[in-house]
Amino acid sequence: MNPSRPRIIIVGAGFGGLVTARALAGCAVEVWLLDRNNYHVFSPLVYQVAAAELEPEEIAYPVRSTLRRQRNARFVLAEVRHVDLATRLIETDAQSFSYDFLVLATGSVTHFFSVPGAAEFAFGLKSLNDAIALRNQILCCFERAAGALDAEARHRLLSFAIVGGGPTGVEFAGALAELVCGPLDGDFPEVDRNEVRITVLEAQNSLLPGWPARLSDYARLRLGRMGVDVRINTAVGAVTGDALRLHDGISIASETVVWTAGVRGDPSARAWGLPVKRNGRVEVLPTLQLPAHPETYVIGDLAEVALAGRTLPMLAPVALQQGRAVARNLARQIAGKSPLLFQFRDRGTMVTIGRNAAVAHVGRRAVTGLPAWLLWLGVHLINLIGFRNRLFVLINWAWDYLFFERAVRLILPVGRGSTVGTRQRKAGVCVSG
Amino acid sequence: MNPSRPRIIIVGAGFGGLVTARALAGCAVEVWLLDRNNYHVFSPLVYQVAAAELEPEEIAYPVRSTLRRQRNARFVLAEVRHVDLATRLIETDAQSFSYDFLVLATGSVTHFFSVPGAAEFAFGLKSLNDAIALRNQILCCFERAAGALDAEARHRLLSFAIVGGGPTGVEFAGALAELVCGPLDGDFPEVDRNEVRITVLEAQNSLLPGWPARLSDYARLRLGRMGVDVRINTAVGAVTGDALRLHDGISIASETVVWTAGVRGDPSARAWGLPVKRNGRVEVLPTLQLPAHPETYVIGDLAEVALAGRTLPMLAPVALQQGRAVARNLARQIAGKSPLLFQFRDRGTMVTIGRNAAVAHVGRRAVTGLPAWLLWLGVHLINLIGFRNRLFVLINWAWDYLFFERAVRLILPVGRGSTVGTRQRKAGVCVSG
Repeated sequence: MNPSRPRIIIVGAGFGGLVTARALAGCAVEVWLLDRNNYHVFSPLVYQVAAAELEPEEIAYPVRSTLRRQRNARFVLAEVRHVDLATRLIETDAQSFSYDFLVLATGSVTHFFSVPGAAEFAFGLKSLNDAIALRNQILCCFERAAGALDAEARHRLLSFAIVGGGPTGVEFAGALAELVCGPLDGDFPEVDRNEVRITVLEAQNSLLPGWPARLSDYARLRLGRMGVDVRINTAVGAVTGDALRLHDGISIASETVVWTAGVRGDPSARAWGLPVKRNGRVEVLPTLQLPAHPETYVIGDLAEVALAGRTLPMLAPVALQQGRAVARNLARQIAGKSPLLFQFRDRGTMVTIGRNAAVAHVGRRAVTGLPAWLLWLGVHLINLIGFRNRLFVLINWAWDYLFFERAVRLILPVGRGSTVGTRQRKAGVCVSG
Repeated sequence: MNPSRPRIIIVGAGFGGLVTARALAGCAVEVWLLDRNNYHVFSPLVYQVAAAELEPEEIAYPVRSTLRRQRNARFVLAEVRHVDLATRLIETDAQSFSYDFLVLATGSVTHFFSVPGAAEFAFGLKSLNDAIALRNQILCCFERAAGALDAEARHRLLSFAIVGGGPTGVEFAGALAELVCGPLDGDFPEVDRNEVRITVLEAQNSLLPGWPARLSDYARLRLGRMGVDVRINTAVGAVTGDALRLHDGISIASETVVWTAGVRGDPSARAWGLPVKRNGRVEVLPTLQLPAHPETYVIGDLAEVALAGRTLPMLAPVALQQGRAVARNLARQIAGKSPLLFQFRDRGTMVTIGRNAAVAHVGRRAVTGLPAWLLWLGVHLINLIGFRNRLFVLINWAWDYLFFERAVRLILPVGRGSTVGTRQRKAGVCVSG
């Protein structure tokens, strides 16, 4: 580290922040990467942790290890308290930093759309802590149902409602259905698998809104075959501790409501005085700079960039490409050149539903079934960080595929430091019904 | 499950309880296995989780999966509230049970010997939660030291004191020294490995008290070479949040005091009115029955059995053999025969210190170095439950051996349901110094 060089602070070690730091490896700068966790999470597989398919460690990687051979970069485990754009100062719970350039990549949080009770009672599916809390809840519900004689209590415990039929909702519904029919069916002789109800509720008129109709229909058909009750045009009115009320007044008894209906930009951005839109995202220039602060970049889920009239989605590939673009623009700025406009290369999106079943949307081609599933497996394995993580995930997937068996299903307590709500914190301990 | 058959309740799914349940597979009985966790822990490797060598899941196994093919057994996730030996009733936080036969196998807890501050501030190393909390603490101390300019704070954060030079203390000290010199040295360029102090404090006049002198000396020599400061004849007077005070008044600054100085029988036994000795263990007949209750067996760490004048140690092999013996005795009792006396076959004990270094005490032979280490590896791998656990542990060990690299070092929050004290609960979140 050379303090005479320009100092770049990167906040957030998700896809965007981590790639920016790595892409600055050869530059004559001093890079500080800040995150509140000491690990980077491969977020596209968080739902598999919740479904007890993968262990938390298999989709996480210590940030420090990724920066080991990079002499110009340091990691700081810290929670940012305040960013002062005017004086270029950052306050954290650990140290304060001044900077020459700033990259904000703090991502997004679950958006509950002010639905009453949702923030309090529904389970999110964004962070690793969310996933562990949800896994605990699912396993605890089965444990409690195993001892429950009361039919109504059993019904409530074995009913799982997933709000949102987008990619996360579809993937989690499929993974949960396979968990219930395979490992949990073997583990719980007290529970008949036909007692279990998995419901997906989507407010719009199809699953995977915005995807080609052929793929939406395929997803709905496959989930239906797996026993998942898919309800479209169904909006949620309220969530309570033991039920979910729909807009039309119908109630679905369930102790486990999973909220995948939306995300919004990290709320800290507003607190720090950044120009924030209604969806919580920060509008940036096509160079990814803040309009009034050319030394400040915002990338990933937090940034809203309009390219050719459409705003880019909140997806990992966008963040990864933006991270590389920002590193390039920082180098240009330091060299006295002007930053380039960001260009996104859309390589397609994919959603897996279950065994041999996935949908992929690559360019104008819509692929379903086994080819899409193999593509999904390959892309996710290749993009995981760390050879050991890839090996362990591959072994777990192969195990699941061959033996219909899942990873160790531990109920481990989740506690302080978790970003989940009051109800989720309870999930570490089974509360007897 | 056939309710007309004799009902056997087993409390605790550790080595003793789990083996008892499995050994009753062929019997015409109804077996209920109760535990507060849904997993069995391979406790001899708990210290490796604390040293970030193995992941929690790799040494744990879901109890329900072990009983899958056993038609006469059921698992109940429950915390026992009360045992009434006279009316043969068990109350739990889930259900109540009457029984014909009872097997108590609730194990042991850390014994702090009333040392002031120990229960509050020292870290235990008994349960999986203990191990996760201690791992978090170690990683947080390094993170905080990385940002600390104050020499005194750095010293306190990088000083690790292990109270107790028995097998657990020796094994953990070695594993911690290897963690510090390998992975953490690479991860923390801000910390010089020579700043780290690991101290083992043993009140008696040698490490591994009761072992042959040759093995104690070897352990002390090897730990010394790894940079561990071993102090014998050193008793601890008090533990505070940032130091440990010795009996002679000397103070050792440390934010991380690990307590491996002793264990005692599960304190619930006293609350349930069982005849408990000063060490918390329940004295049983040589048949493993309670003197006044022939239908009640006590096994494992909780039971104190005197054979040929010496009491059996609190070790996994004793619990395993007692589990099998109790299953046999139960079958005999039900068949109207009298229970047999328990006989312990001592196959030896082993302690690993580090890479290629271990001590083994088999019969009258004392083995050190590489042969003892290979023996230790083999015995522990074979005894792990579950092929996948064995495979993952083997991969992790091989990785560590070949690349001096450890498992993912995540700081995950530990919370409610953990048996650790107030200080440990903090360990999920790094508190800035």
